[in-house]
Amino acid sequence: MTNIDELFVAIREGDRAALARAITLIESRRSDDHAMRLELLELCHTDSTDSLRLAVTGAPGVGKSTLIEGLGLNFIENGAKVAVLAIDPSSTRTGGSILGDKTRMTNLSKNESAFIRPSPSSGFLGGVAEMTRETILLCEAAGYNRILIETVGVGQSESSVSQLTDLVLYVAISGAGDSLQGIKRGILETIHVVAVNKNDGSNERASASFAADLRNSLKLLKGSGPAAEVLLTSALTGNGVHELAQTIERLCHSLKDDDSFQSRRLDQRRLWFDDAVNYLLEQRISSDPRLFELKTALKGKIESEGTNPYAAALSLVNAILGS
Amino acid sequence: MTNIDELFVAIREGDRAALARAITLIESRRSDDHAMRLELLELCHTDSTDSLRLAVTGAPGVGKSTLIEGLGLNFIENGAKVAVLAIDPSSTRTGGSILGDKTRMTNLSKNESAFIRPSPSSGFLGGVAEMTRETILLCEAAGYNRILIETVGVGQSESSVSQLTDLVLYVAISGAGDSLQGIKRGILETIHVVAVNKNDGSNERASASFAADLRNSLKLLKGSGPAAEVLLTSALTGNGVHELAQTIERLCHSLKDDDSFQSRRLDQRRLWFDDAVNYLLEQRISSDPRLFELKTALKGKIESEGTNPYAAALSLVNAILGS
Repeated sequence: MTNIDELFVAIREGDRAALARAITLIESRRSDDHAMRLELLELCHTDSTDSLRLAVTGAPGVGKSTLIEGLGLNFIENGAKVAVLAIDPSSTRTGGSILGDKTRMTNLSKNESAFIRPSPSSGFLGGVAEMTRETILLCEAAGYNRILIETVGVGQSESSVSQLTDLVLYVAISGAGDSLQGIKRGILETIHVVAVNKNDGSNERASASFAADLRNSLKLLKGSGPAAEVLLTSALTGNGVHELAQTIERLCHSLKDDDSFQSRRLDQRRLWFDDAVNYLLEQRISSDPRLFELKTALKGKIESEGTNPYAAALSLVNAILGS
Repeated sequence: MTNIDELFVAIREGDRAALARAITLIESRRSDDHAMRLELLELCHTDSTDSLRLAVTGAPGVGKSTLIEGLGLNFIENGAKVAVLAIDPSSTRTGGSILGDKTRMTNLSKNESAFIRPSPSSGFLGGVAEMTRETILLCEAAGYNRILIETVGVGQSESSVSQLTDLVLYVAISGAGDSLQGIKRGILETIHVVAVNKNDGSNERASASFAADLRNSLKLLKGSGPAAEVLLTSALTGNGVHELAQTIERLCHSLKDDDSFQSRRLDQRRLWFDDAVNYLLEQRISSDPRLFELKTALKGKIESEGTNPYAAALSLVNAILGS
């Protein structure tokens, strides 16, 4: 039995092992950890408004990890404490394809001002966003004020990640054939900065021309806000990484100045409530054998077109609420 | 008290007044109409796979209504029966800004093979998508096989509409300044066809150049599927409208040939079930004074940051399920 108050004190004192243990507790999702988990969240819950939550997304192989390391070291030089988390919906299949190995961020992981959390090794379905929200709060309670969240461009992860973060950085490379192909539904308008990475050696000419194309497209496609900025970086040589870190800090300041930062966070809190209600209801339905069986049977009938989805939903809701 | 069996027979016989009455019943949302509504849905519910559900979206003023009229008449010439519906989330504020007036589609509304349903005059929050799903089924039961759903590019309507339809047509005009600005989050990748409308008179040169820009951007931004097709139309002169109707029919055939049509419909049925469960739970919470008060109080506490959203959700779920 973990003593939550002691754990929290250790987290506040900067004990990284305690933080890692607390995150494991959050991730466990075991129902007997429920009370502890809630207690821990209550202790951590105040939103830290001096933090910046940055999503780093992009297709596999574009160099996200190396770029995150460069960015992280830049933030630390500037006096920040950096936490790196991962949302990896594919980890169930690949055994943890991102951040699976801290050695990919050797310099950052050795730094005292950095905390790197590999993606959970055992897979879980759903609840990714919710769990990450809680992990962010834990890291902030531990004093980390630059939270970098890496996600690969698959499934729902990209749109979820923009609902958890203040800014979204998209990492791309030239010569990937069809340019923005990796960008899935709904993510495009959520991007604040694009890094055209691997801008080194023989890639430089192609990178510059790709960046120009991107700028035009993003301008054409921008919503009511400003178009995303496009920067050239090389995580390998370090060129452009400092400028990228500066751009991110500048964007963060300007968001905080005009209240959009706070209102985005408030929206995210509201969404968290709605998501958590759905998640908890779902969990309760799944853990009740009678309701779970009914739901499975109804879904089967919907798929074979024997039942109208609305009528099926009504049966389930009546069974849940008893009427 | 309406006799649902009689109403259904009248709908099947093509009685347009009966269809209009049935849609009103669906829209009423009065709890004492609940049983009737369910009965009606049960009668109508089989998915009509020879129908095409087409979303027509775009900013206000681009000529959606006139283009819909032209498309509808083309489909009818081809032997189809055409229903035109509207999703208008702004109708609560404007008193029905789209399809509010059938006189905007004079020729189509006089045609015996067409049914035009203005957007509901009284506003309602939420449930837009669900209600439209049911209305589509009613129209299909009445023999309409080209269902055109008009929506303006505001709020959630665009992403909802792609979850209700087989194909999405986006209507744009050149010279709107910033091009695709009207396209909101998540809609871009859901578009199958773009009509650059008002391609007439002095607009022709600008329209052609705008269409070329769009083609490039859409190609650059395409996902794994084919890029959206871009056509030039003038609802005023009728130029290009026949070609647009043909393109839509061709796309519909090719979707049906490779099973993606059916699998999209099946996904939509699954989503309908999930949405309906959430909607019905929400309705039951709202109609229970104790739960409604609790939820309002919890939301207030979340906004003032006094409560962690997860803890608030847990209180609500415990109150709902009693634990």
